Amino acid sequence: MPFRFSDTVLGMKPSEIREMNKIATTPGMISLGGGMPGPESFPKKELTDIMVYVMENYGDQAMQYGNTLGISYAIKAISEMLGKTEGFTPDISQIIVNSGSQQGLYELATVLANPGDTIITEEPTYVGAISAFSGNRLRMEGVEMDSHGMIVEKLEPLIKKLESEGRTPRFIYTIPTFQNPTGYTMGEERRKHLLEIAESHGIPVVEDNPYGKLRYYGKEVKTMRSMKGGENVIYLGTFSKVMTPGLRLGYTVAPVEVMEKFNLIKQALDLATNSFSQFVAYEYIKRGIIYKQIQENIRIYTKKRDAMVESLRENFQGRGVWSEPDGGMFSWLTLNSGADTKLMKEKAIKNGVAYVSGQAFSTYGGQKSSMRLNFTFGSVDQIREGVGRLGKITGE
Amino acid sequence: MPFRFSDTVLGMKPSEIREMNKIATTPGMISLGGGMPGPESFPKKELTDIMVYVMENYGDQAMQYGNTLGISYAIKAISEMLGKTEGFTPDISQIIVNSGSQQGLYELATVLANPGDTIITEEPTYVGAISAFSGNRLRMEGVEMDSHGMIVEKLEPLIKKLESEGRTPRFIYTIPTFQNPTGYTMGEERRKHLLEIAESHGIPVVEDNPYGKLRYYGKEVKTMRSMKGGENVIYLGTFSKVMTPGLRLGYTVAPVEVMEKFNLIKQALDLATNSFSQFVAYEYIKRGIIYKQIQENIRIYTKKRDAMVESLRENFQGRGVWSEPDGGMFSWLTLNSGADTKLMKEKAIKNGVAYVSGQAFSTYGGQKSSMRLNFTFGSVDQIREGVGRLGKITGE
Repeated sequence: MPFRFSDTVLGMKPSEIREMNKIATTPGMISLGGGMPGPESFPKKELTDIMVYVMENYGDQAMQYGNTLGISYAIKAISEMLGKTEGFTPDISQIIVNSGSQQGLYELATVLANPGDTIITEEPTYVGAISAFSGNRLRMEGVEMDSHGMIVEKLEPLIKKLESEGRTPRFIYTIPTFQNPTGYTMGEERRKHLLEIAESHGIPVVEDNPYGKLRYYGKEVKTMRSMKGGENVIYLGTFSKVMTPGLRLGYTVAPVEVMEKFNLIKQALDLATNSFSQFVAYEYIKRGIIYKQIQENIRIYTKKRDAMVESLRENFQGRGVWSEPDGGMFSWLTLNSGADTKLMKEKAIKNGVAYVSGQAFSTYGGQKSSMRLNFTFGSVDQIREGVGRLGKITGE
Repeated sequence: MPFRFSDTVLGMKPSEIREMNKIATTPGMISLGGGMPGPESFPKKELTDIMVYVMENYGDQAMQYGNTLGISYAIKAISEMLGKTEGFTPDISQIIVNSGSQQGLYELATVLANPGDTIITEEPTYVGAISAFSGNRLRMEGVEMDSHGMIVEKLEPLIKKLESEGRTPRFIYTIPTFQNPTGYTMGEERRKHLLEIAESHGIPVVEDNPYGKLRYYGKEVKTMRSMKGGENVIYLGTFSKVMTPGLRLGYTVAPVEVMEKFNLIKQALDLATNSFSQFVAYEYIKRGIIYKQIQENIRIYTKKRDAMVESLRENFQGRGVWSEPDGGMFSWLTLNSGADTKLMKEKAIKNGVAYVSGQAFSTYGGQKSSMRLNFTFGSVDQIREGVGRLGKITGE
């Protein structure tokens, strides 16, 4: 039977996904491509203890369907944790627990906009956000970045232009701290300015903050949600970068009126998030392990970040520009030669190194000479070797 | 800031969800409303052992992001299990592991149809399917049922009518065995006929089979996917009814060309299913526990089903008609009085018993005098007492 499919166009092609999966399992291949934490960062011993404890003490609830918005234990723990780590303590009615933060992005796109509507993102932006937004047929308009994040001065002219075209943006999506893919961080002044512009035009702001706690250098910048005027910011967090991505746990903080809509779409999407994962996260926070783990991850990743930055300096001086991020998981490299990194990929893979080409992160098919390099998954030696291989093939 | 929302209209209202959550936690309340397994059916001891084993032996993979379509261990195990229990052994390229079967429904709606397109379901049908389909703005046309499931004789005239209106249905969704909400099972002849009609009109068939293995009486009927001419049927299965819903694990079997589309939407939805849950399911199948658990669940639920049927006979003779299902989780009660079960609900809750009113399962707002009664969650005594309370208030 010939199947007919919907017209939805999504981010990555199946052939690209297959290629990525193949790369991940090729012996000797150094992948700087994915966005995976280092497995040595997983607190396996502590999680195993917690799992047994959860089964013994909350087994019937942990194995049962949970409430659509989340298990109340987990919601309360998340609220308290945010108070300690992010400077705001949302009411429990303002939190939904999701099957990873990616699901939070999908929910947003479904709830805050109709197909065909326009939204604003950074350019470049997270490939999964592009997937969630384009999967809901939203039109993305990107605001250019510099090394201090989104160039907020360019935001208001863009909004005015879109308003004059009858395309008032439905929301502004930003990853202000250690952005994916660039690693750039928006300073406090720009954050304030962004909030003011959004408020004056009545456009909701979405702050995606998966990497905020992974700061290796420099002074912490407040989350937008915790700033004056940030009370209505929709905030996305995750347990994937500190704890584990395997348990698929993220959360969204939003005003109650938005939460009611999330409640509905969450039911349609998957009824409720994994109860067991939520009880594990609850115990993980309650026992204070997460706060120690943040420090442990910083210790592990600082060395890897340094290896990445040093290798980039050694191999790309005069041949490219790259970000030297104070935290997070990624460096962003742009080649002076103007070479197309997508076309270059085959050669890279043949030479035993993988990356994600810049185009995957572009809202308009740009960023062709750039690539995203991950420095959390591989070992220090692999990072050095991988960047070295990249240096060689781009120099030929 | 006043938020503007999308025009998507979903199944259940937030007020109804809040009510349901409230009911679930009210002391003394007997809920025949939800679709939850009995907690005594959860193999907690075996699962705890498996969890520890998984962390010790597959920890790095179980805590990491998995492939979009699923962990290969789990996919192979699911294929083998289907061979043993459902009479077909799909190729591993034909399986996607989802965050519960609900997600499979959402994926289908996104992939096989555009907003505004028409699909065919049973009338009444599963409330979560209505949620997933209406969340994707699909138009549902229901085919009437009798105690032998969908009245397939009515299917072809409906398809022809829709074709003549330029609304060729994009797929036919059926729960042929122990249907939710009615408990009815479609016989083999009707299944064959349905497959033939679908084939001749080039319309894909979706077989949702969460309850198939929970047969308490009567002879097994083949899954449509395992029948001649059923090779292209899209098949949905779950670990929520045998094992646990808390780990959120379901799967879809479909031809490879459909799988490529699932791959894309799954990425946008939540990147990948919980790796840990997948390793647990893998071990659960590999150790053969699932086959013993099916027998154990049948033992537990047969008594509960009998209590439900006996109580209905005692309380509703001459005042209603109800299904006496050979398996599954639900009875469907229709009151002769024509009373609106939605309006009756407040009174029922005041009298300590909850159910889901028929309208929630209707594609057109019908089924007003019916209600769905679950017999797997409560104890035998609670089921008897709950149906007794229902009998009292409907008799007043």
